[in-house]
Amino acid sequence: MRMYVLPSDFRGTERYTVVGKDVHYLTKVLRLSEGMQFTGRDFSGALWDLTIESVHRNSCTLLCAQTSEPQALTDALPEYRGPFPEIHLYQAVCKGKKMDQIVRQATELGVTRIVPVTSERSLVDMTGKEDDRRIRYEKIVKEAVQQSGSLVVTTIGTPIKLDQVSADWGHRGPACMLHQVSQAQQRTLAELTRTAPIALVIGPEGGFTESEVQMLIREDFHPVLLKTNILRAETAAIAAVAIVQHLLVEKL
Amino acid sequence: MRMYVLPSDFRGTERYTVVGKDVHYLTKVLRLSEGMQFTGRDFSGALWDLTIESVHRNSCTLLCAQTSEPQALTDALPEYRGPFPEIHLYQAVCKGKKMDQIVRQATELGVTRIVPVTSERSLVDMTGKEDDRRIRYEKIVKEAVQQSGSLVVTTIGTPIKLDQVSADWGHRGPACMLHQVSQAQQRTLAELTRTAPIALVIGPEGGFTESEVQMLIREDFHPVLLKTNILRAETAAIAAVAIVQHLLVEKL
Repeated sequence: MRMYVLPSDFRGTERYTVVGKDVHYLTKVLRLSEGMQFTGRDFSGALWDLTIESVHRNSCTLLCAQTSEPQALTDALPEYRGPFPEIHLYQAVCKGKKMDQIVRQATELGVTRIVPVTSERSLVDMTGKEDDRRIRYEKIVKEAVQQSGSLVVTTIGTPIKLDQVSADWGHRGPACMLHQVSQAQQRTLAELTRTAPIALVIGPEGGFTESEVQMLIREDFHPVLLKTNILRAETAAIAAVAIVQHLLVEKL
Repeated sequence: MRMYVLPSDFRGTERYTVVGKDVHYLTKVLRLSEGMQFTGRDFSGALWDLTIESVHRNSCTLLCAQTSEPQALTDALPEYRGPFPEIHLYQAVCKGKKMDQIVRQATELGVTRIVPVTSERSLVDMTGKEDDRRIRYEKIVKEAVQQSGSLVVTTIGTPIKLDQVSADWGHRGPACMLHQVSQAQQRTLAELTRTAPIALVIGPEGGFTESEVQMLIREDFHPVLLKTNILRAETAAIAAVAIVQHLLVEKL
């Protein structure tokens, strides 16, 4: 199902003018024209009844009214309507397309928040500077939410370093890191996945270093060994998110 | 961990001459030279002690002795050594890169067999003709097995049509299809995932048609609705395989 996601600069006004690529999406992809009503979603996840007031060459004006239940959808609603347990993905930044794929697929699955993390073996450091990547990730999120009709509008967190993950998380719930080597402190994903919110820390292509693992363990992040082959970062992230979501939803 | 996979034309001979890209892989990537011993795996999954007898410009000759336990590895073994429950993935063929990604990631996860399936909404029909795609998938499998050190050498089945899936499977174990619409007969993935071997049928980009779903139900393939958003085919396949594998491994 497709649901239009209002741009991130939408501030809940009664009238909003869409510009850029969204005009094409609304008028060509969804084939909406003046007077037509449809349901959209803003970046906070709130639903809006939207009516196309006017269409111009490079813009299109919408009348916006907040709503609690989708009225006029551009497509069928997904069968499963939630709940979506809160999953926070702390993902060590991978190379270009791999990270794009993780962001897209984690968004499809309905992850609450993806935080790009810099670790020792990361090939990219996004912290402490303006970075085009964040804008790209937000664009990927928007497309994936529209395409999957996700009821969660995934957010991209401020990029941080691995030693800031614990402070960012602040013991909000169980926390685990995927690590390919057994640790004495190790528990299984099924044991840890009892309640949400839950934090998942996934390493970069080369994994975490031993000292990084020890640091995370001291901060109550539990090392988890997935009982499978050694997975690439992008496969590990999606497999772990899918399993954790499945375990939490089954418990509800 | 990396483990060399012998080409599919290797027939268990005492001496085997490697040609083509594998020469580069052995001598440049793994940096093996004359006299060096390492462990490889053939397409049936059997382990071989291999010794480099001679290296030439475009070929390299190996002495091969079957073994039960890896002796000289080119890298560390993965921590998890199995078991890998038998999962058979009947995947409706998706467009080029998506299908490549499914084959690669399903192989990483240790799927036993991937069967390309033609359904009504498939954009590609691979049945009943020679198709380069199968050769490409086998190449992707080989690379993914080598890269992940998978203990399962995934096989690519003969492409079939959706109405042949049931005969191919032959009631070997539980069978489910992912479908995004609730069905009266529906059960959960957790209920169905009790024993291996297990069959998973995944639709193409546009999903299965209602009549296809009814046909599969009549043939004891249980419709399963993943409790998540509507996923793209490539995300659905990996999420489902990861969850099924996790559920089965936890039961062992």
